[in-house]
Amino acid sequence: MSSRFSLVFTLLFATSLAYAQPISPRLEQRAAALAGKAGEDNLGYALVESLTTEVGPRLAGTEAEARAREWAVDRLRSLGFSHVRVEPFELPVWERGVEWAQITDPYPQPLVITALGGSTPTGPDGVEAEVTAVASLEQLSAAPPENMKGKIVFVDEVMTRTQDGSGYGVAAGKRRAAAYIAEEKGAVAVLIRSVGTSQHRFAHTGQMRRLTEDGAVRGVPAAALSAPDADQLQRILASRGSVTLRMVLTPQQRPAGMSGNVIAEIPGTEAADEIVLVGAHLDSWDLGTGAVDDGAGVGIVVAAAKQVMDAMPEGPRRTVRIVLFGAEEVGLVGAQAYAQAHADELEKHIVASESDFGAGRIWRFETNVAEDKIDAAQALGSVVRSLGAARGGNNASGGPDMKYIREAGVPVVGLKQNGWDYFDLHHTPNDTLDKIDPADIAHNVAAWSSFIFLAANADGYYR
Amino acid sequence: MSSRFSLVFTLLFATSLAYAQPISPRLEQRAAALAGKAGEDNLGYALVESLTTEVGPRLAGTEAEARAREWAVDRLRSLGFSHVRVEPFELPVWERGVEWAQITDPYPQPLVITALGGSTPTGPDGVEAEVTAVASLEQLSAAPPENMKGKIVFVDEVMTRTQDGSGYGVAAGKRRAAAYIAEEKGAVAVLIRSVGTSQHRFAHTGQMRRLTEDGAVRGVPAAALSAPDADQLQRILASRGSVTLRMVLTPQQRPAGMSGNVIAEIPGTEAADEIVLVGAHLDSWDLGTGAVDDGAGVGIVVAAAKQVMDAMPEGPRRTVRIVLFGAEEVGLVGAQAYAQAHADELEKHIVASESDFGAGRIWRFETNVAEDKIDAAQALGSVVRSLGAARGGNNASGGPDMKYIREAGVPVVGLKQNGWDYFDLHHTPNDTLDKIDPADIAHNVAAWSSFIFLAANADGYYR
Repeated sequence: MSSRFSLVFTLLFATSLAYAQPISPRLEQRAAALAGKAGEDNLGYALVESLTTEVGPRLAGTEAEARAREWAVDRLRSLGFSHVRVEPFELPVWERGVEWAQITDPYPQPLVITALGGSTPTGPDGVEAEVTAVASLEQLSAAPPENMKGKIVFVDEVMTRTQDGSGYGVAAGKRRAAAYIAEEKGAVAVLIRSVGTSQHRFAHTGQMRRLTEDGAVRGVPAAALSAPDADQLQRILASRGSVTLRMVLTPQQRPAGMSGNVIAEIPGTEAADEIVLVGAHLDSWDLGTGAVDDGAGVGIVVAAAKQVMDAMPEGPRRTVRIVLFGAEEVGLVGAQAYAQAHADELEKHIVASESDFGAGRIWRFETNVAEDKIDAAQALGSVVRSLGAARGGNNASGGPDMKYIREAGVPVVGLKQNGWDYFDLHHTPNDTLDKIDPADIAHNVAAWSSFIFLAANADGYYR
Repeated sequence: MSSRFSLVFTLLFATSLAYAQPISPRLEQRAAALAGKAGEDNLGYALVESLTTEVGPRLAGTEAEARAREWAVDRLRSLGFSHVRVEPFELPVWERGVEWAQITDPYPQPLVITALGGSTPTGPDGVEAEVTAVASLEQLSAAPPENMKGKIVFVDEVMTRTQDGSGYGVAAGKRRAAAYIAEEKGAVAVLIRSVGTSQHRFAHTGQMRRLTEDGAVRGVPAAALSAPDADQLQRILASRGSVTLRMVLTPQQRPAGMSGNVIAEIPGTEAADEIVLVGAHLDSWDLGTGAVDDGAGVGIVVAAAKQVMDAMPEGPRRTVRIVLFGAEEVGLVGAQAYAQAHADELEKHIVASESDFGAGRIWRFETNVAEDKIDAAQALGSVVRSLGAARGGNNASGGPDMKYIREAGVPVVGLKQNGWDYFDLHHTPNDTLDKIDPADIAHNVAAWSSFIFLAANADGYYR
């Protein structure tokens, strides 16, 4: 791969220079050369393989997530990073139990469902009730309570497939809020069409909105139906008008468990107190092995940082900090813990970004920085653009775990991955290693290593 | 669709005539015109939709399969067929229970499995043992018992994707026999890599060989792993050498339940005692809704026969008999019952065929007839070839349920479907209606209606 990369860089170098005002051509050349090495060993893929095989599913607050932290500490130390440590935090822990649903009338048959994270249990005998369908969360909100009382509400909203993942925010709204609105209306349970884009018969789990800080659980029992099962239910409702359904969910909630963020660094030199933060999250949902969400991100940022470290035995100007967040899936708990623990240091966070959108290739480099620093921040993506990414806008989220530090003023950028197929796998049992193309991981590592190298060695500021 | 079909037929008619020695050009013209009507209402698709929605899964010998028979009798009568009846038979009934597996050492994590049909139970606490892997059934057969004693045997044989399904026979061997060979060697359970071609995380069920007629169950508990889980187990065995696994299977076997074949006819005229048999099977595995296996076949043959009936208010020369077999999946029980019940009538079965290979388009028309009747039998496929099928050989099976009547001397033909993707879905929860393209069903109905029309109105014999 490296010789092909080199050719591409030679051809595209003139173009990328146009954006490179605050970064010296020499730095940029070194970043490009670094990117060219990403395919040589594919450490990124080896890390995803190792995490998904040796730990597998790693739900926040469980013993499996603790093993993931041990795995990460061990790997980060072996790779030679400095200041490797865990920053622990507590959180309420929700664990899945039995999940089972069956149409009882008019056409008895089982349905494939999965409990939403945070769902209350139905009790071991389940609930049986007539189904009432609404086409959207808005329709549920507007429905008169007398139509919902005693019913199982079916929210049949379809998610749109998009490259940038913009369909997710809309579709995930029903997952986050339906159980609470249904409870207010007097319903006994809620089923949603999975927040996902695949027709394969997997139900997509995902967190409901956390209403309370005390870990107390609210809302009616809530589960997602796979797309074929949502189609089936919809078809029967359309032809027969009425469906009765029984569902059993027996999740359990513990008031407190342990999670933690795993942190490692490449110490800086002239500007060691300035931090370039690169992140991914270590936890995953319990159904798959967390390959695209977010084993891929872990492999990408760690391998990219390792390349930068190896290329600069003298150390970069600024400190590069890897943060592998815990408990992202259950509500960005690790992100919040990090922002709190490092509040007095955030003004020294120069730029930050997280890789958490699967294993697709990067197609856009976007920023969220001061208006007059956009070109300077875009210069950090010059090699990323050489690899095929477009220049994006200035409203990047930087990734889910960047939320609190971004809101605290830390400039973020986004190495935006192609998410066209991401929600086929997202939060399902089907999120496994075989869905990842090793060459795509190498592409991401190439892009990230160039970004980390430039951000850690540039002298620009982006606030 | 009909105008496009007409054009194709006009263009190809000269070619197809070359094979049409025993069939008059006028008959062939009428068959081609009939085929051209298949897209007009798409009754075939409507039937698959109705069966998979209103009955859903319909495992042999269960109440759900009984509902499928009621559905079939009702539909066949409404459509206007004659002599609609059920020919019941008894069989031992196996039903799935809990199925669950987990690696306990070195990397604890759940695995996706499904019990093989006919598997013995592990008991509610399951079995826990070290795994020993073999690459094939042959390797299992050759293994020294001391290496297998007390172990869970993992048969990691991969199935080859082929258009004609020829990879299935090889791969299904391990499903049929592994539990019995493993038992002889002293193993405590067996896991096989699913007999299937998809990387989606579904385990493929399917029947083990029936060793006894009395319904008694033999063999160690046996389950299939999904392909990603088989990969995972293989990866851990390769890196660590040893894996301990716990599995729980609680299927139950009842000595006797009811099944039946549903039969309907278009009575013949001049040669009413001569029978053209067209079949599909009504039962399905319990995991999916039996859309491609074999709701599609039911829709195709019933809709095609209906077209022939409607085109000939006067009735065809020969009797067309639709047989919707029960209990195919669990060992061709309905096929055997039919062959026994109709033994004295089989010499009057002129030609027979079953549609049971999914919903793909037909790419080959093949025969299994007397050597000197090959051309005559191929003439029954003249319009099928016009639709894009090649002339196949003379070793057609005619479909699984044709086994016993073929062995009793009934000539069979095969309207061979493209099975490239069939084993992605076969015997999994993912075998649902949405996987079927309605236009493909219309293509099949066109082909089958021309074949039925020609076979029922020709005066050739194929023995």
